Amino acid sequence: MSDSRIYTAALIVIGDEILSGRTHDKNIAQIASWTQVQGIRLSEVRVVPDVLERIVEAVNALREGYDYLFTTGGIGPTHDDITVDAVAAALGVDVIVHPEARAILEQYYADKPGGLTEARLRMARVPEGGELIPNRMSGAPGIKLGNIHLMAGVPHITAGMLDALTGTLEGGTPLVDETIGCWTAESEVADILRQVEKAHEKCQIGSYPFFREGKVGANFVIRSTDRDELGSAVDTLCDALATAGFDFTPGGI
Amino acid sequence: MSDSRIYTAALIVIGDEILSGRTHDKNIAQIASWTQVQGIRLSEVRVVPDVLERIVEAVNALREGYDYLFTTGGIGPTHDDITVDAVAAALGVDVIVHPEARAILEQYYADKPGGLTEARLRMARVPEGGELIPNRMSGAPGIKLGNIHLMAGVPHITAGMLDALTGTLEGGTPLVDETIGCWTAESEVADILRQVEKAHEKCQIGSYPFFREGKVGANFVIRSTDRDELGSAVDTLCDALATAGFDFTPGGI
Repeated sequence: MSDSRIYTAALIVIGDEILSGRTHDKNIAQIASWTQVQGIRLSEVRVVPDVLERIVEAVNALREGYDYLFTTGGIGPTHDDITVDAVAAALGVDVIVHPEARAILEQYYADKPGGLTEARLRMARVPEGGELIPNRMSGAPGIKLGNIHLMAGVPHITAGMLDALTGTLEGGTPLVDETIGCWTAESEVADILRQVEKAHEKCQIGSYPFFREGKVGANFVIRSTDRDELGSAVDTLCDALATAGFDFTPGGI
Repeated sequence: MSDSRIYTAALIVIGDEILSGRTHDKNIAQIASWTQVQGIRLSEVRVVPDVLERIVEAVNALREGYDYLFTTGGIGPTHDDITVDAVAAALGVDVIVHPEARAILEQYYADKPGGLTEARLRMARVPEGGELIPNRMSGAPGIKLGNIHLMAGVPHITAGMLDALTGTLEGGTPLVDETIGCWTAESEVADILRQVEKAHEKCQIGSYPFFREGKVGANFVIRSTDRDELGSAVDTLCDALATAGFDFTPGGI
């Protein structure tokens, strides 16, 4: 029997570098893929600048509407790292130096030039009540506080933090999906897609057009929490495409 | 004399494929870079699913707080393309078939199998009052309605639409930036960055750490709308880094 409750998450990507176009965000896709495997559906993302009020506003807008809230960015040692202060302000709690985080940083910087400087000690600051999320890449931990998870901005550090969280968040039945690709304009297949989705109400079908090698094509992604329904919808779509004379590629193009 | 008014924009990225992690968004960075050149600051991004109410909510939340609103995705021919309906609902206007858009599509599909089918005609639907944004890649136009700009989800099609909009939106003095890179942990430079930013109040400094070739480093990006102030802050930062004995690379690493 499957758990029919849908667990949801929101993500706040914090950083001027994303909004200036300087850095291409990789955390949205990374966290989306990870939550999906945990049976949690990423349902909204907001990208906001390194401005305290804007982060506070986003945290307060999202922390109650979803089961989980993630943030990426702004937990480093420099003056533009203000995520901890913003989350503390949003929750109305103080910022404290977490003893365990301080111990981790003391050890991490023991053999590095300068040792645990005041700037580095900033990375031990947590909103009061926060627990640590291990960071095996670079010492400074992430923070978990209620349903809020503060992660790094650097994608490979966030990847390590997600590893540490794997299996610790309650989720529902994961969405599964199958992809069918066609070297054809999606507009030619639109009616078929609509009919197949209508006939399989436990499935959603997305159509993702592309242009490659001088030709148009599209991938059709069918998603469901029910594997049997998914399989049935895939069969229906393949039959319909074959009947209409379209070449298609199971697995996608 | 420079125009000191700051022009802002928000972006709504519409699509389950981004929230599922299946597709890595490229439109945020593309639109961010483009707006910056137009003297418009991208100030917030929201990623929402292909759900009418969620798109309506985001459009209404963002269309008044910023000078411009862009959307990407959901303007194709398939059943999951509902951006036009959502924007019309948000504005309280009807959806009509735009005669010029219909003419464009008739011509575009004249020599293609099936011609202008009902599914393809969906791409001529616009919220009443909307004007067309040319799409030289694939026929179906974008839509401009007041300060709202509806663009494609496929990045190279959006690129063509942005080209068509270039120079048509009023902006302010563009932000300019310079980057200085250091093969050092950002935590070692945190105090210097804070001091330089404090001494140059017309500049913002961002610190972007990375891990490459087995070593940590960081790029420091100084941004300002004032080229002289930017140059002065860059000089101050380089002097401070040199004095403290750091190797650095103008232009970034």
